Amino acid sequence: MEDPWASGVRIGDAMAFAPRMRPIPLRDVTITDAFWGERQRALAEVTIPHEWDQISVQTPRLKNFRRAAGKAEGVHEGRYFDDSDIYKWLEAAAYSQALNPRPEVEAMMTEAIGAVAAAQMPDGYLNTFFQTKHPDLRWRNLGAMHEMYCAGHLFEAAVARYEAQGKRDLLDIAIRFADHIDAVFGPAPKRRGYCGHEEIELGLFRLAEATGEARYADLARFFINERGQGDSPFAAEAKDPEAVKLAPWHASLVDGTGAYIGGEYFQDHKPVREQTEIVGHAVRGMYLFSAVAEMAKTSPDEALEQASHAVWNNLTEKRMYVTGGIGPSGHNEGFTFDYDLPNRTSYAETCAAIGLAIWGRRLTEATGDAAYADVAERAIFNGCLAGINLAGNRFFYANPHESLGNDERVPWFDCACCPPNIARLIGSITDYAMSVSDDGLWVHFPVSSRFSARLGGATVGVEIEADYPWSGTYRLAFGPETPTEFTVRIRVPEWCEDLTLEFDGASEDAEFENGYAVLRRVWTPGEILKVEMTMEPRWLRAHPKVIDAVGKAALTFGPLVYCAEGTDLGFAAPTLFVDPEEEIAPVPAPFGTGLRALRGRAYRPDDEERPLYDGYEDLALQDVEATFIPYFAWANRGKTTMAVWFPVA
Amino acid sequence: MEDPWASGVRIGDAMAFAPRMRPIPLRDVTITDAFWGERQRALAEVTIPHEWDQISVQTPRLKNFRRAAGKAEGVHEGRYFDDSDIYKWLEAAAYSQALNPRPEVEAMMTEAIGAVAAAQMPDGYLNTFFQTKHPDLRWRNLGAMHEMYCAGHLFEAAVARYEAQGKRDLLDIAIRFADHIDAVFGPAPKRRGYCGHEEIELGLFRLAEATGEARYADLARFFINERGQGDSPFAAEAKDPEAVKLAPWHASLVDGTGAYIGGEYFQDHKPVREQTEIVGHAVRGMYLFSAVAEMAKTSPDEALEQASHAVWNNLTEKRMYVTGGIGPSGHNEGFTFDYDLPNRTSYAETCAAIGLAIWGRRLTEATGDAAYADVAERAIFNGCLAGINLAGNRFFYANPHESLGNDERVPWFDCACCPPNIARLIGSITDYAMSVSDDGLWVHFPVSSRFSARLGGATVGVEIEADYPWSGTYRLAFGPETPTEFTVRIRVPEWCEDLTLEFDGASEDAEFENGYAVLRRVWTPGEILKVEMTMEPRWLRAHPKVIDAVGKAALTFGPLVYCAEGTDLGFAAPTLFVDPEEEIAPVPAPFGTGLRALRGRAYRPDDEERPLYDGYEDLALQDVEATFIPYFAWANRGKTTMAVWFPVA
Repeated sequence: MEDPWASGVRIGDAMAFAPRMRPIPLRDVTITDAFWGERQRALAEVTIPHEWDQISVQTPRLKNFRRAAGKAEGVHEGRYFDDSDIYKWLEAAAYSQALNPRPEVEAMMTEAIGAVAAAQMPDGYLNTFFQTKHPDLRWRNLGAMHEMYCAGHLFEAAVARYEAQGKRDLLDIAIRFADHIDAVFGPAPKRRGYCGHEEIELGLFRLAEATGEARYADLARFFINERGQGDSPFAAEAKDPEAVKLAPWHASLVDGTGAYIGGEYFQDHKPVREQTEIVGHAVRGMYLFSAVAEMAKTSPDEALEQASHAVWNNLTEKRMYVTGGIGPSGHNEGFTFDYDLPNRTSYAETCAAIGLAIWGRRLTEATGDAAYADVAERAIFNGCLAGINLAGNRFFYANPHESLGNDERVPWFDCACCPPNIARLIGSITDYAMSVSDDGLWVHFPVSSRFSARLGGATVGVEIEADYPWSGTYRLAFGPETPTEFTVRIRVPEWCEDLTLEFDGASEDAEFENGYAVLRRVWTPGEILKVEMTMEPRWLRAHPKVIDAVGKAALTFGPLVYCAEGTDLGFAAPTLFVDPEEEIAPVPAPFGTGLRALRGRAYRPDDEERPLYDGYEDLALQDVEATFIPYFAWANRGKTTMAVWFPVA
Repeated sequence: MEDPWASGVRIGDAMAFAPRMRPIPLRDVTITDAFWGERQRALAEVTIPHEWDQISVQTPRLKNFRRAAGKAEGVHEGRYFDDSDIYKWLEAAAYSQALNPRPEVEAMMTEAIGAVAAAQMPDGYLNTFFQTKHPDLRWRNLGAMHEMYCAGHLFEAAVARYEAQGKRDLLDIAIRFADHIDAVFGPAPKRRGYCGHEEIELGLFRLAEATGEARYADLARFFINERGQGDSPFAAEAKDPEAVKLAPWHASLVDGTGAYIGGEYFQDHKPVREQTEIVGHAVRGMYLFSAVAEMAKTSPDEALEQASHAVWNNLTEKRMYVTGGIGPSGHNEGFTFDYDLPNRTSYAETCAAIGLAIWGRRLTEATGDAAYADVAERAIFNGCLAGINLAGNRFFYANPHESLGNDERVPWFDCACCPPNIARLIGSITDYAMSVSDDGLWVHFPVSSRFSARLGGATVGVEIEADYPWSGTYRLAFGPETPTEFTVRIRVPEWCEDLTLEFDGASEDAEFENGYAVLRRVWTPGEILKVEMTMEPRWLRAHPKVIDAVGKAALTFGPLVYCAEGTDLGFAAPTLFVDPEEEIAPVPAPFGTGLRALRGRAYRPDDEERPLYDGYEDLALQDVEATFIPYFAWANRGKTTMAVWFPVA
């Protein structure tokens, strides 16, 4: 019998990958940041154990693996893609262990990985739903059943555990499954196909990079290239009674004439290189185009780059909430049409904002253009973080942009993609904040930390001191052993009117390139670079086709979008009128740890005893002192009304 | 064997009913009205045949009756309350035949009534779902299964056919079924119970009035009195496996502890006399309280009147759209909380607005207070009529109050309550317009017509000439054979700033009482009363807790609410800014027959090439000439954007 643990892959082999920039390995980073440090502390102490309890005790997710291994009674229970929740939790836990190691978390991970390993089949296949319920129907319904999606999350978790913790237990499992998939799918004579929910492409690229095995990247490219070319495999599945048995809704993908009508939802309505708009299921779209960015970055491909830019522009110029939330409709968990961004009914799935952050990061890495990091930052500090409470154990799946007081985060979901997804984002936040390239360091946004990186051919200790996102001022200290020439690039956020640099007390002129201040010089030990970005309360307006923002303004401060809650106002937040000319000042938030609120004069209608409808008169308004809190921190004090866009008095 | 056609009921027996006012029998009315005449023409020529096609050809509704009679194969198909659609269609057809008789419609009615008669069981029971599928489970699930609801619509149809057409074929069927129900339900030793969907109460009151049989009114009172008293019968059903088999969702009416949690949806959360807010399913609530008004009008009952007023005030002062649409949420097809009146997602079921018109009419009849007629008129001319297209063959079930262009009426619904309901309203519109009481005539709103009525003890011919709702001026001519003393009451609508009366050319002072101008005098043949109501375009504002109307205004003209459509504007209607100070003038509508539009200067944002979000500046606005059309006439020219509430520039 084949030894499931044998692998011919040599870890770390050099490959043709030449990304413009790479994240800084988490093992090399110490976080000292007030903002992210607190979130990562909650991640380690609260979120990871809470989600483990959900996965292993409250729900049968872990038990499904035991069942697949023949070590527990019964067959898979839950949703057919529930395996992915364990993988995403493992990925988050790996980051957290690199940052804040805790023996009890390592024990949970060991138990989980043991269960996963025991469940894997001799041929490498791994999916507890199919193994326990439909072993004969593997890969029979690629469109609906998420088999490759689950595999992709396994690959990402395995790479995270390997890179962040230096442990290859999960990587070996991933490699065996990847080899299995690579043996089944690919150019003829192998089988053509791709997954209904993109994710494996990203996982394969990461696996290729971690293992140096080009086959995995080739397979990711194959999946991307085949998507939307000619007949969709999902159309054939929709006519296959066995495939439909697995997911009856799949039959609705073809109409009475046999024509395929499901394409946009899966982004396979046309080849990726011909796409110009973001359509369909939002998370699917983000994961696809994130992988496309990876693909373009390793092999120049003008058509792919043009499609990426067109879709990105459509998304960020016409289909994105001010918070970086995306996908307004719950109907398809996704996109509708340009400027359709309703506030109260906004779906804006947490995972979709995370997907946007991932895509923005990948495009930043591929292009060195801060415009992508601007959007990633917007999503991270607003749409993503709103998905989790401050304590770290309650979650939003859909994120309203106006509430009449009926919304609250919950401990878990039947479809629980979001909780472990926000956990892995928080754990890996430095990947979005700082990068290194062959010629130096990139700071997209500052996270107080110490790390060492290869800069200009030398290993350089770097220390960042920031109070972000509350202050635009931060310091970087570099500690090369000897004077070393390298480039430091500091992002100039789109919200920042003026960025100045000071070098050891003297102002420093920098060139600006693609939204970064570029400092190319010889750095000597102990020198300190001070960055000052103007950061003021700033009122925004939206394009007037955004109907729910017509005549309204939204408040921002640096990367943060602010909202108002009824809890602070004493009346329904959506009826707060504002005057963008009034002064607004930062004040400590009335809750949370270190949060900053904004406060200033605003107005409320004088509504005593008015009839429901009467002859029009301008509203009588009363002055109020209004408190605004960061959008990500809303709904942390019970159910209450909330608004992001306020009518202008 | 019992003769199913024998009946001991004497038609027309005098009873204790003493309503303050009654409608004018449709047989005695000739409509000459441009507005309603056109709608009733479409009803006879288009709507009635179209709906008959849906009932008898496109769907198995009529076939279900043949199946119950053993004259067609198979068992009931469709929704278990589909019988009611035939009954409501028959009611509408009866009115239409009284107004615009057509032999082909009479043939349809004969066929339908024949099928109904053949299906009725020897004991009087009649419900094709239970007869063909669950004969052993009759009355086993009162909460979910609408058996009494269907019966109530049979009773209303039967009375309509008898009163409007003088034919008692359907009445005999109704009487037999009513007797059956009366034998089963009532005070001990009969069974306690009431229907999950109120309607039978209204049907029984009408049947009692038409037949003079007090038992039916007593049974209606029993159902109303028992509702919400002590244990709900629906709670016991929710624990009865046989009952739950009929409607699995019914099991969710009790929670894990066995506690009943379904009450508000059915208005049986507390006794009717203790209710103070309108809650739950909107149509159910309207039908219940319409019956309550009937009950209160025949037997003085202070607690019932107080509850009626409290619930009415809550509804009309806090939970009603400006169109008279009610029930904002699709989740429960009903009510949520005070001032929750979202525009884009408004459910505002057509049947609910019709129910509000019915309740308002019944309360007007019971109290003689025009405030109720004001609301009925608002619902009729806006929320109800929007449910049907101008041609008469397309319908809205839910009625948005803002559209981004995705809404259109359709020929029929799986749950098809609304199409025949709007048909019966249009057919019986004079019941809502004019009434007679012992001392004279009431004109709630004018419909050009000729009719004779018993006024002041004499039979008096009345002629009304109006151009309503386009003009506030109308004339009434009275033709008593000899001078006769009676009272004429003319409603002063709440939208009307000034109402003047002229009698044979000379202005006439009237007393005003409960919103009616009261003229008590001796009328001689040929005298003409001229009514002039100021009718000007009028901008409304809403209570500022109506969040979707904050900073906005809505346009009305007489009883009509106006809207704007993208078709006329050339841009998205919800981005139209208005200035209530600008002059607005009536103009012919660009479509329809005789419709009046309103036109005036308004504004649109200058939105060329603006980014999605940028620093706040007041919008640059351009002047536009904006056309507003009656809300009821929207969506008659294909899908387009629409708004009722406009931001004020």
